Amino acid sequence: MFNHQKYGKQYFMPPTISYDWVKKETLEKAPTWCSVDLRDGNQALPIPMNLEEKLELFQLLVDIGFKEIEVGFPAASDTEFNLLRKLIDNNMIPDDVTIMVITQAREHIIRRTFEAIQGAPRAIVHLYNSTSEAQRRQVFKKSKEEIKQIALNGAVLVKELAEEAGGDIYFQYSPESFPGTEVDYALDICNSVLDIWKPTPDHKAIINIPTTVQIAMPHIFANQIEYIHKNLAYRDGVTLSIHPHNDRGSGVSDAEFGVLAGAERVEGTLFGIGERTGNVDLITLAMNMYSQGFDPELDFSQMNAIREKYEKLTRTEVHERHPYSGDLVFTAFSGSHQDAISKGMKYRQETNTEKWDVPYIPVDPVDIGRNYQADVIRVNSQSGKGGIGYILETNFGVKLPYKMNEAMGYATKKVSDQTSRELSAEEIYQVFRENYVEYHPNFELVDYYFNKGTGQEVTLTIQKEKEQIELQGKGAGSLDAISNALKAHFDIDYALEVYEQQSLGKDSAAEACAQIGISHQGEIYWGAGIHEDITAASVYALVVAVNRLEDALISQKETVK
Amino acid sequence: MFNHQKYGKQYFMPPTISYDWVKKETLEKAPTWCSVDLRDGNQALPIPMNLEEKLELFQLLVDIGFKEIEVGFPAASDTEFNLLRKLIDNNMIPDDVTIMVITQAREHIIRRTFEAIQGAPRAIVHLYNSTSEAQRRQVFKKSKEEIKQIALNGAVLVKELAEEAGGDIYFQYSPESFPGTEVDYALDICNSVLDIWKPTPDHKAIINIPTTVQIAMPHIFANQIEYIHKNLAYRDGVTLSIHPHNDRGSGVSDAEFGVLAGAERVEGTLFGIGERTGNVDLITLAMNMYSQGFDPELDFSQMNAIREKYEKLTRTEVHERHPYSGDLVFTAFSGSHQDAISKGMKYRQETNTEKWDVPYIPVDPVDIGRNYQADVIRVNSQSGKGGIGYILETNFGVKLPYKMNEAMGYATKKVSDQTSRELSAEEIYQVFRENYVEYHPNFELVDYYFNKGTGQEVTLTIQKEKEQIELQGKGAGSLDAISNALKAHFDIDYALEVYEQQSLGKDSAAEACAQIGISHQGEIYWGAGIHEDITAASVYALVVAVNRLEDALISQKETVK
Repeated sequence: MFNHQKYGKQYFMPPTISYDWVKKETLEKAPTWCSVDLRDGNQALPIPMNLEEKLELFQLLVDIGFKEIEVGFPAASDTEFNLLRKLIDNNMIPDDVTIMVITQAREHIIRRTFEAIQGAPRAIVHLYNSTSEAQRRQVFKKSKEEIKQIALNGAVLVKELAEEAGGDIYFQYSPESFPGTEVDYALDICNSVLDIWKPTPDHKAIINIPTTVQIAMPHIFANQIEYIHKNLAYRDGVTLSIHPHNDRGSGVSDAEFGVLAGAERVEGTLFGIGERTGNVDLITLAMNMYSQGFDPELDFSQMNAIREKYEKLTRTEVHERHPYSGDLVFTAFSGSHQDAISKGMKYRQETNTEKWDVPYIPVDPVDIGRNYQADVIRVNSQSGKGGIGYILETNFGVKLPYKMNEAMGYATKKVSDQTSRELSAEEIYQVFRENYVEYHPNFELVDYYFNKGTGQEVTLTIQKEKEQIELQGKGAGSLDAISNALKAHFDIDYALEVYEQQSLGKDSAAEACAQIGISHQGEIYWGAGIHEDITAASVYALVVAVNRLEDALISQKETVK
Repeated sequence: MFNHQKYGKQYFMPPTISYDWVKKETLEKAPTWCSVDLRDGNQALPIPMNLEEKLELFQLLVDIGFKEIEVGFPAASDTEFNLLRKLIDNNMIPDDVTIMVITQAREHIIRRTFEAIQGAPRAIVHLYNSTSEAQRRQVFKKSKEEIKQIALNGAVLVKELAEEAGGDIYFQYSPESFPGTEVDYALDICNSVLDIWKPTPDHKAIINIPTTVQIAMPHIFANQIEYIHKNLAYRDGVTLSIHPHNDRGSGVSDAEFGVLAGAERVEGTLFGIGERTGNVDLITLAMNMYSQGFDPELDFSQMNAIREKYEKLTRTEVHERHPYSGDLVFTAFSGSHQDAISKGMKYRQETNTEKWDVPYIPVDPVDIGRNYQADVIRVNSQSGKGGIGYILETNFGVKLPYKMNEAMGYATKKVSDQTSRELSAEEIYQVFRENYVEYHPNFELVDYYFNKGTGQEVTLTIQKEKEQIELQGKGAGSLDAISNALKAHFDIDYALEVYEQQSLGKDSAAEACAQIGISHQGEIYWGAGIHEDITAASVYALVVAVNRLEDALISQKETVK
């Protein structure tokens, strides 16, 4: 059954190819975006939207900044007819928004379509018929000339009815199933339709080229569009539009190349809803422009809210890896990525870099209403120290010294390996607390006070198993005094290798976190302390570090035995 | 916050551009496919796979036909180290499959990697380091020369360790974060690495160019790859490979253009699992080739089973609109699409067309283990007669006459409009039965028999409300005799306009379905009958049609009153 020989080339190359498009690098100016969510999107839903849902989606599209919105196929569905009447009769269409309605090139359908838009301030009547070789042969059983005549008859009728209706009516024609249509034949139909409409720069017509079903690579589509662009009649009176689908997973590239090749307008949907694999996702196109520094003229600063509303209205889920909007698209689980992101974020802060260039994050998630804490760095068994340090710092304000971060990385990995699942920020913080803040298997600090208040002589009480012991110490400073007391009592020696402390909040009453690393025979032992008083934080940190050193010494002694 | 000026170009054009790739139309020969599901895919899972799950996925990849499989990053994870040992120690790697392991260019990591593959029959050691301008500046704070040296030191060490280890070990080098790397600099590193490895046509090395993060359009990537392809040292001893991600929704196009531009190998994953927006989906790439008539050298005939296993192992869902594998990607809800598909399928049957070219279905769903009934035509309020007729025919064997199909379309639309949801095939069949098979509000047929067994004289019993009435009729044939009896009794006149009948099953004992259309004053009234006996099926069909005509006449009389 799995036999590729059943398939062959169904697309047509244009008569001449100029390849101008390939010399351009990227989209620098936003095309006119036309949302077809309410039509092509809606018709592909197992449960189409009802009137109220459509009105809500219409408003969302307006809020995002769409200036052209295809509202429906009013002759084919009462819901869509009623939606149009509601929008028009209640003056719900903003002055800078033009609605569009689609109609097959058949008389009774065209007439019904004009009833639907009666009284609209402005409207585009979108006429189409199917032109592909396969459909002419299989579906319509008509010649090229007969199929062309369907388009022309439709064009004449919409022109007549528009003149009767008065008002500001624009025309659009689509040679549907274009990908399987001979390119020069499609162009001939378009130019003949334009000959009827005689558009002008002041009152343009739209010629819309769909990849109804994707059956060729995107550079083929670019070649086709460039040929049409260069050979279109009334060129300065025409907006050349494209309408990509996504059957080969290349809808985005069809759209972007189509614009490079001369298209000035793109039809698509939010999140790529639409027949089969969907229409092209206009969010991806807009954000692709945005991330290159060009104005997409659509506003996706509220991406999460847009997505939430869309999912509710269409009963469709956005996939977790959908570009720009999916749950996981800003997330790094891998250790090396997390490390680079942490360093990139730090670099950005320290250098006040103007342009965004943080590794592994193509767009600043904050721009679209997402946040670093929840979205960027998440920890599973593939994660490393970079991500863990980043999570402790951004979520809890704890900045670990480099080597301590490494130790904390191993401690966390052990937990995530055992649990075999992702760890939340809170769970990682818990690992930190258990290993470095609340770790005192050998002795606990009960109390301490500095004699004469100078901080150079200390009395401290520790608890070893059930026994409380009072110790005395002297030193150059408060920490040194306590350290000396512990050294003397436990008969150990170490050097204070690393000492760092940072406030966990912004005001002076906030808690501080101190990290202390003591070295003994080339190894470093870590502890942390959290307290409102900065001295206390340091003392508690030292107590944990000494506990860890004691662990090591005890285990050494046992090995010797 | 939503400010595009924060962004700028981060990619680099190659020093020279030849545009040879753009003159090729499509992929005609399958590249070497390398699955990175177990490494790049797995590391992006909130819950990474455990050992047993990885073994199951490895077997699935082998079954599909992958000859190169990246098994993991053994130095970074015990699970991945253990997986390798398990595969090697239990001889679980087929003779024609080569495993790959990835390692950073750091000494202790490289050494641990060689421990992991000790004893493997063949293996690719995949060395990488990050080379982008942003990462050199922000993460490593190293010069171009220093970063290059990291790669070279790694290349020397893997060569030494491979010679020590013996066995069939191949090398691969990736300049990670290539999209933000100066192209000539990346090439220089690759060529210097090759100078150490000195690969030959008999023992090739792999140079792998990743779009670690997509930050440019796919034609830019093609230009970059073509430059590398043309300027690579030891060219006939090197397999040029690519590793596309999907941040701009263009992973498929990066991969396809990369191959046109000279790449001979593609790394990716099933269903596009991977960091952030994922790796390129190798299924889409393979099926894109397949649908153009070229052998992808991977077998996706069991798409549903593959998907089911993948979803279970990775705890990831395939989106309903994911090319080739999503639930909805073969589905047409819209009336005009359904109509064209029905006609295309009929045309295909009638003409025995060799090549697949059914409108709106780029690949025959049957090829990949899906089926027309469940997948292709589904009915919501946007659907039309074509789809409904198709569902009745393919699911139930009922072929409606054209005009009756139209009437049935309106009846169904009424129900789907009211219920505001998709209708199942069974529900559509129920609409058909209620409207055309079991519809007799005015009278029912109780019994009939033909006098003398000739079928030209009939006695039939009908029930009107609670009264049973016996009628007599004569005619040219059995149906004519019954029709005449009904005409006389109800004092009506009509012509038998359409009569069709078809068997609902393949053997002679199967039920038949008859459809009858009778005309009166220019209108046609429809009925259907289902019965094991073909005469009875016709009689019952006629009775429904006459009931519908009676409806019309009664409502006319009421209007007159």
